[in-house]
Amino acid sequence: MAERPSRGLADVVAASTALSDIDGRAGRLFYRGYDINRSQEPMEALRSLVSLASAEDPDKDSNEPGPNTRKAARLTAQQPVLVAAYHAAQCGQESRPADPEAGLAASFLLQITGAPPPDRETQILDTCLVLHADHTMNASTFAARVCAATLSDMHSAVVAALGTLKGPLHGGANEQVMRGLEAIRNSGGSDPVGAAASHALARLRQGEKIMGFGHRVYRAEDPRAAHLREMSAELAAASGDDIYYRMSRKMEEIVFAEKRLYPNVDFYAATVYHYLRIPTDLFTSVFSVSRMAGWTSHVMEQHADNRLIRPDSEYIGEHGLTWLPLDAR
Amino acid sequence: MAERPSRGLADVVAASTALSDIDGRAGRLFYRGYDINRSQEPMEALRSLVSLASAEDPDKDSNEPGPNTRKAARLTAQQPVLVAAYHAAQCGQESRPADPEAGLAASFLLQITGAPPPDRETQILDTCLVLHADHTMNASTFAARVCAATLSDMHSAVVAALGTLKGPLHGGANEQVMRGLEAIRNSGGSDPVGAAASHALARLRQGEKIMGFGHRVYRAEDPRAAHLREMSAELAAASGDDIYYRMSRKMEEIVFAEKRLYPNVDFYAATVYHYLRIPTDLFTSVFSVSRMAGWTSHVMEQHADNRLIRPDSEYIGEHGLTWLPLDAR
Repeated sequence: MAERPSRGLADVVAASTALSDIDGRAGRLFYRGYDINRSQEPMEALRSLVSLASAEDPDKDSNEPGPNTRKAARLTAQQPVLVAAYHAAQCGQESRPADPEAGLAASFLLQITGAPPPDRETQILDTCLVLHADHTMNASTFAARVCAATLSDMHSAVVAALGTLKGPLHGGANEQVMRGLEAIRNSGGSDPVGAAASHALARLRQGEKIMGFGHRVYRAEDPRAAHLREMSAELAAASGDDIYYRMSRKMEEIVFAEKRLYPNVDFYAATVYHYLRIPTDLFTSVFSVSRMAGWTSHVMEQHADNRLIRPDSEYIGEHGLTWLPLDAR
Repeated sequence: MAERPSRGLADVVAASTALSDIDGRAGRLFYRGYDINRSQEPMEALRSLVSLASAEDPDKDSNEPGPNTRKAARLTAQQPVLVAAYHAAQCGQESRPADPEAGLAASFLLQITGAPPPDRETQILDTCLVLHADHTMNASTFAARVCAATLSDMHSAVVAALGTLKGPLHGGANEQVMRGLEAIRNSGGSDPVGAAASHALARLRQGEKIMGFGHRVYRAEDPRAAHLREMSAELAAASGDDIYYRMSRKMEEIVFAEKRLYPNVDFYAATVYHYLRIPTDLFTSVFSVSRMAGWTSHVMEQHADNRLIRPDSEYIGEHGLTWLPLDAR
């Protein structure tokens, strides 16, 4: 027992537990010995957080236009706050409160960077969010529509989309672009722009792909890339460190000369987010903040004129086998 | 303060809280005033539970065949235990432990009904689980493949599938068949079989559909339906109450006579599960227990020979609009 009564039982050990432990000085929380900061990557956490959020949505049981519109607004407003809360937990910090008066982009930058952003940075993030909001039948949007077409609910469809965006062939590309640039620059040479050129050339000549170039649908330049290139240039100049921008320009030049491939939406989004001081491991999550508007709109469009999406398949296995128990094979 | 030292601080009020409250006598738990038993329907809860489970999977970061096979085995073994844990929480009971020696079907029936099942009931559930395990490119399996094709992970794909199975046009049908039978029988007439016939006839003549009949792919009888019909008959006879079975037979006769439609897999699955004493609100969850084997196998097949699934779309909206701010429209 404590020697004197302790208000709120502070410092009184009430019970033994093997469930959770706090290292207050280091700002770390452990569940059964697992550090919560090592437990989940952002898209994995967001998939669960959005799934759990349906329980509190008063409109969750209806797919009608009114309830769906309200759910879409809530999901879109909620996503940046979830990303910021996840980020704060990863850093062992309290989540900074969102600022509903500031608008989605400014509030998100405030929560992530800790300071109210300059107006121009808010405008640029806002433009990025608009540019990434929808893109026809991309894989995550299509997954959301396949789900919604069983007349499942908007949260289920968006959770399917989040898990799909998580894949490195889809939402992961902007993060990989930035990791590539960081790796080249951090390798320590005195000429990172030249190193980027040699790296790109070497990869292409070995027949490897370079992340952020080419697109299944566009044959001309992705119309979003031009805006992102321009914003990247502006932010680079304002930041006083334009190395990543110049590395990107040089890689673009090499890839076009060698392969006639244009940068896609992910290539310059990487440096734009970087110059906005968004941590690299959150890039796919920022994509989800934007695409939430598209996903939820596609769910509403699907529900408004629904038919189950159930393709055929081509069977390529064996035929006419006789079943034998496993231990008789 | 308690008058004498209380071992384990039992009955000592340690703090005020607005978070959770327990009504121990009634076996109810409330989060911020919400009864946990009203909070989530089973498929909504399973979507979140499986999503959360990835954090503890030691193979979560790899899509290679070995790790994927281990994840598939864990997910398939875990699903009946999650369903039983959910059911116990809904009933305000402790979850009964699974019996790893008993096999998946027997352990699940033990957990759900509270008693070791007769061998024949175990065989029948086992057969049901095999019959529902895979069915080419059904909507939930297709959603899993769309997700996996971005090289996202198995848990993300299975979570997408669970959200898709949740839709009433897909996994919800067996539950709706049983609810329909229950509603007709509970309406209290002395001839429920005759009432089922009148009900079916009236619906068909109003141009309405009857759940559990017809299929997008099969034009002949669904080969699974014959097995399920037979098992339903056997369990009905053994139970001493064959009313639901006879109602089903009568409806089948009417629908075939009127529309030349055959029962699909969901129609007799409903009464089989009912006679196995599985609560009606768990029927879609039992479907997921079976289909987990199919989903996880499809994810492995997709990862083994992957290409991004990204269909085209037909644009049907307006063209060439000039953007105006909302308040200028």
